Amino acid sequence: MATELMRNEAGIATALGILKQQFGERFQTGASVREQHGHTTTWIENQPPDAVIFAQSTDDVTTVVKVCATHKVPIIAFGTGTSLEGHVNAAAGGVSIDVSQMNQILAVHSEDLDCVVQPGVTRKQLNEHLRDQGLFFPIDPGANASLGGMAATRASGTNAVRYGTMKDCVLSLKAVLPDGRVIRTGQRARKSSAGYDLTRLFIGSEGTLGIITELTIRLQGIPEAMASATCSFPNVEAACNTVISTIQMGVPVARIELLDEAQVRACNAYSKLELPETPLLLLEFHGSKASVAEQAEIFGEIAADVGGTNFAWTASPEERTKLWQARHDVYWAALAYRPGASAVATDVCVPISRLAECVSAATSKMAELDLIAPIVGHVGDGNFHTSILVMKDDADEVARAETFVGWLNETAIGMEGTCTGEHGVGQGKRAYLQAELGDATDVMVAIKAAIDPDNIMNPGKIV
Amino acid sequence: MATELMRNEAGIATALGILKQQFGERFQTGASVREQHGHTTTWIENQPPDAVIFAQSTDDVTTVVKVCATHKVPIIAFGTGTSLEGHVNAAAGGVSIDVSQMNQILAVHSEDLDCVVQPGVTRKQLNEHLRDQGLFFPIDPGANASLGGMAATRASGTNAVRYGTMKDCVLSLKAVLPDGRVIRTGQRARKSSAGYDLTRLFIGSEGTLGIITELTIRLQGIPEAMASATCSFPNVEAACNTVISTIQMGVPVARIELLDEAQVRACNAYSKLELPETPLLLLEFHGSKASVAEQAEIFGEIAADVGGTNFAWTASPEERTKLWQARHDVYWAALAYRPGASAVATDVCVPISRLAECVSAATSKMAELDLIAPIVGHVGDGNFHTSILVMKDDADEVARAETFVGWLNETAIGMEGTCTGEHGVGQGKRAYLQAELGDATDVMVAIKAAIDPDNIMNPGKIV
Repeated sequence: MATELMRNEAGIATALGILKQQFGERFQTGASVREQHGHTTTWIENQPPDAVIFAQSTDDVTTVVKVCATHKVPIIAFGTGTSLEGHVNAAAGGVSIDVSQMNQILAVHSEDLDCVVQPGVTRKQLNEHLRDQGLFFPIDPGANASLGGMAATRASGTNAVRYGTMKDCVLSLKAVLPDGRVIRTGQRARKSSAGYDLTRLFIGSEGTLGIITELTIRLQGIPEAMASATCSFPNVEAACNTVISTIQMGVPVARIELLDEAQVRACNAYSKLELPETPLLLLEFHGSKASVAEQAEIFGEIAADVGGTNFAWTASPEERTKLWQARHDVYWAALAYRPGASAVATDVCVPISRLAECVSAATSKMAELDLIAPIVGHVGDGNFHTSILVMKDDADEVARAETFVGWLNETAIGMEGTCTGEHGVGQGKRAYLQAELGDATDVMVAIKAAIDPDNIMNPGKIV
Repeated sequence: MATELMRNEAGIATALGILKQQFGERFQTGASVREQHGHTTTWIENQPPDAVIFAQSTDDVTTVVKVCATHKVPIIAFGTGTSLEGHVNAAAGGVSIDVSQMNQILAVHSEDLDCVVQPGVTRKQLNEHLRDQGLFFPIDPGANASLGGMAATRASGTNAVRYGTMKDCVLSLKAVLPDGRVIRTGQRARKSSAGYDLTRLFIGSEGTLGIITELTIRLQGIPEAMASATCSFPNVEAACNTVISTIQMGVPVARIELLDEAQVRACNAYSKLELPETPLLLLEFHGSKASVAEQAEIFGEIAADVGGTNFAWTASPEERTKLWQARHDVYWAALAYRPGASAVATDVCVPISRLAECVSAATSKMAELDLIAPIVGHVGDGNFHTSILVMKDDADEVARAETFVGWLNETAIGMEGTCTGEHGVGQGKRAYLQAELGDATDVMVAIKAAIDPDNIMNPGKIV
């Protein structure tokens, strides 16, 4: 991807000189800090920025953007660096704006179930802050990501089946445009029909249209009760059919996760569990005490009808934690499953009716390509991840992994699905956008050109 | 608004000549059909298009758009004509594309809880089609609007507190761009992080970026049980506080509507009811039998704590219909409340913590201006409507109504609210967008210019 873009050496040198004067110790060019700020978990090479600036305010961001705009220098926003598709790579060099120090929770409006935060606030930090007020922020992508980054990539995760994705949980954004102007995309009302939905346009724009410097976020009341459940299935089809029936029945599951056979095997080994080594569903129910009991029982009946076994549910916090242990440890379990390997996480999302077929085909394809890649899925949404366990010094295996990712994306798109349910496009999924959306990508290009005509905002990503 | 825009007389004449040849009887220029297609319910004058074309396919729409693009002639999409802010007015003349004959339900995917429809399908038509499959489409803006129009205005209504707005219920769109290209904004997966959210950009764009010719829509399973409830309150504050507590407690109310004292009085007179003439909440609960009973009881306890009286709930369909009669008849009740008057509906939306204050201030302002305007609100969202009952031949009263609408919008914006929660901008709310969103409106202008450089798509609306 880097080859498409030319480095503006003169502009970068000039801008760096100015910014160094202005930001002092908050301007850094050491190799390790630059490398930490430009990386990817795919096989695309790391592309460090030329400098990292630690912003502490919207004004700081504006200052950086104006200098970079004047000298046509790329700007890449950085939160916690947990994105997976090379979103923070500096494909043409430039300046990484690290917003991790912009981590203040500016207001919590408990009556309105919303809060206003800076972009470097992480989801765990927010939830710790909210707990005493009986509120929580539901989106859980796994990593303790920053809320700015989660908005920029349209993140979701395990709770999305009940609470939606970042597009549903953000009311409005403050953003610095490529020319340094600061806009607010909406007010604090829970809904609005006032003009184009700029909030949703910036959510998922991956820093290519501007830098998010403040977010107004919808919250949820902590439910009176939570219950967790596990159930094993003879095959992926049975598990998926159970999910479909559960959702059709209107059971408001908060989480419904699938682990395939390989992932269960990895979890048994890593977490010293004795789960049947067949596909497993893990669930969480939120509601009143009576409601979570009812939800768990209805689910159990549906699962039993299609051959689900070892169904267990509990409302006890300790036992819930234990049941979810396997899910929380999947990444480490996968790595331990093949010592020395790196995990290349890729995600696709298909209509739920096609999920079993897609997962099964992926399993066959991995066998054909002699790859090991446990599967975990947010199956209520039809979204699943393969963690391809690759020895990165084995060029042939890396090539086969690339072949698999290409095949998986094409297969998902062919099933009316998407090349990314929640990770975003970054560098890794650019090749599939055209196949998925055709001429609609031209509209994206037109919007990008209209808002960022000099292409200084995270160039080489999405479009 | 019309004065801002110049009519392109030569282009219109040429395009009409070509289109008449191509569409035969589906091309109409009679005065009554033109007047029906260019109207408003505000005091802005009716602005009929020069011709109306009844499209039957995406290809028809493409044909019209290409001819109009060549000759730079305005195109205004028309569904059922139930928009409220002059959205279908032809401010600079041109062609109205009526999509009401594009009313086929193309596919229902019950396992995926979605369907694919043409834009002229109305919400009632869709729900009748779905009923046998145990599915429903939840958005109810009151009027039996077309789904294309509902998407174009980002409609919502009584069920939005539980099921969201059109932005939450549309998975993807097919649209004809201003140059005649046809795009699809997404696939059928329930979520995606694949590039800019063009689906949400087109939802609420009011026909200014392209013409929606197909929608993929999320559906819900019909709940096992529904229950309705009513409760009277000594004042609007008590009613609003009950709503806030109910939502904070996580009671998943499906509908929670406020009628103010004037509206209850109007309903009593019109529907021969004997409700206490104080603010009233009407609710609906969806879930299992046990869950709706529990929801109603929790709500009843919360309401009793703040002085709610005459609380009644029922799960019987007949009694539910009776309880909701008042809500369904509000428009007619309001008209009957002042015989001879027209109802000018306006809507704003504020954070729910400010709702009581906003409604009370509106009531005082109406008294000060000697206006009659019953209030109905989707209070779970902080959204409310005033139906200003105006004698349209009384210029002074019309002027006072305009003053009220201006005051109401400024007041809502000052409370971190929006000038329109669900009706859209059209012509009527353009004046308030800048006050609400500042420089963000420049970004809207840039997007409009990038996608529709000749400003042929519903000119004079939004931006």
